[in-house]
Amino acid sequence: MKIYKYPNKNSWSELIKRPVIKREQLSKTIIEIFNEVEKKGDQALINFNKKFDLVEIKNIAVSESEINDSSNLVDDELKTAILQAKENITKFHASQKTEIEKIETAKEVICWRENRAIEKVGIYIPGGTAPLFSTVLMLAIPAQLAGCQEIILCTPPDKNGEINPAILYTAQLCGVTKIFKTGGAQAVAAMTFGTQTIPNVYKIFGPGNQFVVAAKEYAQSFGVAIDMPAGPSEVLVIADEQAIPEFCAADLLSQAEHGSDSQVIFISTNEKVFDETINEINKQIIQLPRNKFAQDSLKNSNFILLNSLEKAVELSNFYAPEHLILALQDFEKYIPFIQNAGSVFLGNYTCESAGDYASGTNHTLPTNGFAKNYSGVSLDSFVKKITFQYLTKNGLQNLGKTIEIMAEAEGLIAHKNAVSIRLNTK
Amino acid sequence: MKIYKYPNKNSWSELIKRPVIKREQLSKTIIEIFNEVEKKGDQALINFNKKFDLVEIKNIAVSESEINDSSNLVDDELKTAILQAKENITKFHASQKTEIEKIETAKEVICWRENRAIEKVGIYIPGGTAPLFSTVLMLAIPAQLAGCQEIILCTPPDKNGEINPAILYTAQLCGVTKIFKTGGAQAVAAMTFGTQTIPNVYKIFGPGNQFVVAAKEYAQSFGVAIDMPAGPSEVLVIADEQAIPEFCAADLLSQAEHGSDSQVIFISTNEKVFDETINEINKQIIQLPRNKFAQDSLKNSNFILLNSLEKAVELSNFYAPEHLILALQDFEKYIPFIQNAGSVFLGNYTCESAGDYASGTNHTLPTNGFAKNYSGVSLDSFVKKITFQYLTKNGLQNLGKTIEIMAEAEGLIAHKNAVSIRLNTK
Repeated sequence: MKIYKYPNKNSWSELIKRPVIKREQLSKTIIEIFNEVEKKGDQALINFNKKFDLVEIKNIAVSESEINDSSNLVDDELKTAILQAKENITKFHASQKTEIEKIETAKEVICWRENRAIEKVGIYIPGGTAPLFSTVLMLAIPAQLAGCQEIILCTPPDKNGEINPAILYTAQLCGVTKIFKTGGAQAVAAMTFGTQTIPNVYKIFGPGNQFVVAAKEYAQSFGVAIDMPAGPSEVLVIADEQAIPEFCAADLLSQAEHGSDSQVIFISTNEKVFDETINEINKQIIQLPRNKFAQDSLKNSNFILLNSLEKAVELSNFYAPEHLILALQDFEKYIPFIQNAGSVFLGNYTCESAGDYASGTNHTLPTNGFAKNYSGVSLDSFVKKITFQYLTKNGLQNLGKTIEIMAEAEGLIAHKNAVSIRLNTK
Repeated sequence: MKIYKYPNKNSWSELIKRPVIKREQLSKTIIEIFNEVEKKGDQALINFNKKFDLVEIKNIAVSESEINDSSNLVDDELKTAILQAKENITKFHASQKTEIEKIETAKEVICWRENRAIEKVGIYIPGGTAPLFSTVLMLAIPAQLAGCQEIILCTPPDKNGEINPAILYTAQLCGVTKIFKTGGAQAVAAMTFGTQTIPNVYKIFGPGNQFVVAAKEYAQSFGVAIDMPAGPSEVLVIADEQAIPEFCAADLLSQAEHGSDSQVIFISTNEKVFDETINEINKQIIQLPRNKFAQDSLKNSNFILLNSLEKAVELSNFYAPEHLILALQDFEKYIPFIQNAGSVFLGNYTCESAGDYASGTNHTLPTNGFAKNYSGVSLDSFVKKITFQYLTKNGLQNLGKTIEIMAEAEGLIAHKNAVSIRLNTK
């Protein structure tokens, strides 16, 4: 935990430095895995299951009975919670649908956009320490709302060759069409090329470790789109004098527990709140099961005391946090000044966990400074917007001269001819 | 020109093959150029100007007087045309603005999205045979509408060290803030890292040769976003019995003149229209100044006779053309079935040149099959959508249990605590 009181503005670029991720050594491995999957298909995946997941799998595809059984293996209480989250996430993402609006840009020249779902999408869900069924909700719900025809999901099996039932339950609930037991870079390769069992897809979504991240990046060179570039998760909290140190500390820790490379930044304009939040962190951290991750992540983390909220917002925009919590009395006043952030949580009762799970917003968000140039996942991520245009003969007559002059000035005479030949035809 | 009459469906994947672009040998050059620009800044750009553009430039930045003079150097007729195009493009892109819609997903849980412009964007305009001022319109207009604070433009100088006045005129007209005389991969590197003169940007837009395309791809590994992956331009025309062969031929040629690697595909359900269109192409091509490009590009191009429009649309979706012309009587009937296309032109009088220049739609579109997973450039390309959420204390009480159960099931106890500590506070 690094503490800075009233740091000089010159030092700001130091304060927003993120932990550096070394990736060069990954690329050779990734290329090898892709080659293997492209060449051997399912058999490569079975081999990688043995090697990385330490389990022998006969059928990469999760069977219908496994999916149907999952419902019995999930607590009723958890099912109810998942259903409520699904309802809220559905409501928010459904509101992102847009109507077709035809615009007459010039007389008898009509232009508009229509949405079309990306036909085949793939969702990657990591295995490891936490079964991320919440990410299934965040990706499968908008995919289904958008109308994607094929929604496949890949996730690594556990040592018994099984998938956590909460993941299976959530996947079938949200319209995932097929589920496969494969993880890591090989799963990304399988969705890129397709195998005997796994269909290739046009866009791959979802979080993962450095191998998965590098694999998604590499997949792009084969024409596959990805949700966004990735990095470790992060939160920035801005707290004024009315903020509640216990709450701030809990929010910071909820981010810090994600992994050793998570980053949390705390900015306050009030020294009492500042000091008490730090004390609270030291108190609360002891009781966390993922204490080790939180400890590590706090080492990368900055606690900054500033003398105005304007500066705090400026520093936040400079950092471009994935999650931004405004634990402020007058948060509304500062909203217009928020330029770069993935998702913003307002006031003392809007904890990040609300958006992580159940408020309705998406939790797949730009990290690592990408909030400067990327949006989080939304319904838009699952559609293409196709432009349409219709010109009547009169419409072309109105616009024709303009097009001819411009095409000629660019030296593109065939472009001009396409107009002239029409204008000259009776 | 390859002609296929009633080909078997098994052969379709052959018919939609695009010319393969070899790119591996480019990457070493690109990395060297990036290293040079990162290390030496402006001096590297000046050296590259000498090497590639055969001109010695002292000031990379276009001066104010060069910009002001440009207006006198552009024909009044062309200025009027540019202004009309600007008006239509502005009208269509302004219609893409969205209102903030606050959604109460659960009681006292309010979620919404707000748009924020990407603060700094860069536009690349190629030099070479045609001065693409139309692309300046297509990129600078939505950037300005979105509210981007810094809109810079890089384009290579000619042998006199000058930029085509139509480019300068259009750039200042559309709110470009700074213009620089640098092209190729080095321009992309400069916008990625920034130099003494050129600011770095968060997103790079615009077409270019294979070096520029590879450089934009490489720029992404430094955290810069790009408009979309690129490939050679292409059109697919579907014509029924009422289509006019002269028009179809002119449209196909207007695409073919772009470059030797352009691809055009013509599908008809009527043998007379099919044969006559081919005859017309042979007639019209002779008179084109860019005849050589068109000849080359026609070699990559397929002319396909099919027995139903349903099949034609199916094949088109399979190909996913950048531009799709439906020269059909009942084009409206087929619109719902168009799944993959960049921009669609309807009827006999909507030539592709209309959209290339002046109807209002954007001409920066997904090529090379990327219409399966990408949209063309729009206002959306220049903004991030930030999600906001506000929960009252009651709101969190309504949702709290759900969040606690889900967080616990994922093993993320600090996420749960952030809720519990709030619910337990009076």
